[in-house]
Amino acid sequence: MKHKIQQPHVVIIGAGFGGLRAAKALADAAVQVTLIDRYNYHLFQPLLYQVATAGLSADEIAYPVRGILQKQKNLNFRLAEVSRVNLEKKKIITNQGEFSYDHLILAVGSETNFFGNQTLAQNSFSLKNLTDAEKIRSHILYQFEKAAMEKDLEKRKNLYRFVIVGGGPTGVEMAGAISELIRLVLKKDFPNLNTEEVEVILVEAIDRLLPHLDKSLSTAAMHALQKKGVQVQFGKVVESYDGEVVRFQGGEKLPAATLIWAAGVHAANLVDHLGVEQASLKQARVLPTLQIPDYPDVFLIGDAAYVEDKEGKPLPMVAPVAMQQAEHAVSNLKAMLNGEPLEPFEYKDLGSMATIGRNQAVAQLGRFRFRGFLAWLIWLFVHLMQLVGFRNRMVVLLNWAWEYISYDRAVRLLKSTPCESEER
Amino acid sequence: MKHKIQQPHVVIIGAGFGGLRAAKALADAAVQVTLIDRYNYHLFQPLLYQVATAGLSADEIAYPVRGILQKQKNLNFRLAEVSRVNLEKKKIITNQGEFSYDHLILAVGSETNFFGNQTLAQNSFSLKNLTDAEKIRSHILYQFEKAAMEKDLEKRKNLYRFVIVGGGPTGVEMAGAISELIRLVLKKDFPNLNTEEVEVILVEAIDRLLPHLDKSLSTAAMHALQKKGVQVQFGKVVESYDGEVVRFQGGEKLPAATLIWAAGVHAANLVDHLGVEQASLKQARVLPTLQIPDYPDVFLIGDAAYVEDKEGKPLPMVAPVAMQQAEHAVSNLKAMLNGEPLEPFEYKDLGSMATIGRNQAVAQLGRFRFRGFLAWLIWLFVHLMQLVGFRNRMVVLLNWAWEYISYDRAVRLLKSTPCESEER
Repeated sequence: MKHKIQQPHVVIIGAGFGGLRAAKALADAAVQVTLIDRYNYHLFQPLLYQVATAGLSADEIAYPVRGILQKQKNLNFRLAEVSRVNLEKKKIITNQGEFSYDHLILAVGSETNFFGNQTLAQNSFSLKNLTDAEKIRSHILYQFEKAAMEKDLEKRKNLYRFVIVGGGPTGVEMAGAISELIRLVLKKDFPNLNTEEVEVILVEAIDRLLPHLDKSLSTAAMHALQKKGVQVQFGKVVESYDGEVVRFQGGEKLPAATLIWAAGVHAANLVDHLGVEQASLKQARVLPTLQIPDYPDVFLIGDAAYVEDKEGKPLPMVAPVAMQQAEHAVSNLKAMLNGEPLEPFEYKDLGSMATIGRNQAVAQLGRFRFRGFLAWLIWLFVHLMQLVGFRNRMVVLLNWAWEYISYDRAVRLLKSTPCESEER
Repeated sequence: MKHKIQQPHVVIIGAGFGGLRAAKALADAAVQVTLIDRYNYHLFQPLLYQVATAGLSADEIAYPVRGILQKQKNLNFRLAEVSRVNLEKKKIITNQGEFSYDHLILAVGSETNFFGNQTLAQNSFSLKNLTDAEKIRSHILYQFEKAAMEKDLEKRKNLYRFVIVGGGPTGVEMAGAISELIRLVLKKDFPNLNTEEVEVILVEAIDRLLPHLDKSLSTAAMHALQKKGVQVQFGKVVESYDGEVVRFQGGEKLPAATLIWAAGVHAANLVDHLGVEQASLKQARVLPTLQIPDYPDVFLIGDAAYVEDKEGKPLPMVAPVAMQQAEHAVSNLKAMLNGEPLEPFEYKDLGSMATIGRNQAVAQLGRFRFRGFLAWLIWLFVHLMQLVGFRNRMVVLLNWAWEYISYDRAVRLLKSTPCESEER
């Protein structure tokens, strides 16, 4: 598809945090860049749970890639879904034809990990893209519409039981936001709603939430969730879910019309076909320089790459790692083009955080730990500043301010008709 | 489904402009009101074309019905799709069970009228609901992504040819907004785009646009569209469209990857099953009091009702008629409950308008005619004020201001993947 060009042709697959950062870092390089993604927008994943709980609209956390990179003269964007990469022939096979490359940066990210459980893959909700988030929003709202017409108490309680599996940031943020949506907003929409009938249950297999943070913050997060009406249950492993009843290891059953699966991700399926040794979450084991073994022209970064820190612990699959790796891969690529030696990647951990509803969060920044309202303000500031584009920032800020002042959620639209929203 | 209650039970079907106004007008009446709609939101249809052309997001022109009517104590909202009304037994049959009523207000609106042409129903886009609008948006953006990879000039020009059929307000607004989206926004996103290859064609069967307005305004609208790069073609009737080629009466053919059908509506299909005499666009012929003949307990208002003005001309199927009829039907219903005589409906025509892109409009208000920038300011003010909810107004205003200053369209998201967006 590409004309012969003088400058080296660098292809980047994926316009997530890693791919986008790599594209920008190549702006001043003497190369031609093609950025490929199956969507035409960059998704700000950390706020996806807000779309799922009617706090923000989909459009507020997604920004057109062409808009972001409009001024970058050495870059072309291509909307295409990549099915395979042929490392030998340096070809990328997509639904829009083949692309060839001189250098490749793979930033293909991760997918929801159902650990091979088909009942979960089919009947639970996950939260990886905009469609997922809008499906969860419609589904939650539809349960309340159905329950408003349901006379049988047991059936009503099953409609009102929301099970979230996974005590990581996504699970914690979803549980807090769902509970607030119900208790602060839907309570007003449904005057006859008895919130005693509603249960938001966060289930975690191990004995604490947010295991990547300090234990004191895990406990703080648990208390904050409980205060917001979330039941936190530890040591429970889901065995199956048929859309009506959750079955746990050990035999316990829990009827629930909603199960949200936030128990983990694995590297994108594309990695399976690279022929590279993979770690437990399917990530490719890359060299310390972030190159793929035997293919020095191919860099692999972000969630799909397996890299260990100095203590031999794998780096987390989070945006800051992907962005630092993007900068590093591009710097190594430039060194290669200049015939200079490549450097090994080192991750600078700047901290992590999770929010719990409209005024609580926990944050660990270097040696500092924050909780409560102060942590929430830090979370708010950090995320708002990272949103792409002035307009998005303004609209999101306005939305948040409005929501905060009025206890209202603006975007509680049930877009699909009842029958459609039953499909998952 | 409904318990026995002392007060009369008034059911309203439809939460559009008519139904919503009727619900509000009943706030102070000694009745129990049930409002039924298949969506949980009220849609501000006059701005739907903005969603289809990436100017506004879906959430900005839709507002949850429960949010709007939260404070109305005598009202219940029910999310259900009505399939039939049994006038004899006073029963409403829905996908959520049956509802009975003492009094009924039908405000079921209209649907796109393909005049029985299956090729158009299957292959063209229409613009009646949020899903329609988001499909058009994704489709337009996808044509540009495909064309960016298309080397064949003829194929590329077919991707770039947008045919809009119907010279009413929807067609005029769509044509102007699509042309601006392409020439002001996508031109920047696609640096290699040659706008000479792009054609936006507005096709009308008769010899003028906006036939409900004064002829001078029709001409002004045509000139404004032409200035924005729209080709306006009169006297052309579409015979069929297979998704690739538009065939006109007389044999002319025009290849185009996009046909947007804005050539009319007819009353909602529900009206067919009422057993009431129907007019040419399937509207039920109601009594001057807006009651259905032989069923004094049933009022029918809005797009689905056929009412003539004093000169014997049918009232247009527009929001102001629906809202005035809603007020009148409720006033007649209250009179009936008090044993007072009912009054015939009279429409007060406050004028109409249509916008042509970001700074042009035509408006006819009583004896006054406006065109150009002043008409656009009037249009802006009227529509902004009518949007439900302070937050929606603020967000839309911010969006419009941003768009106006920056010539940018914020919401150009292609939400479905390429293969999905091929389905219509």
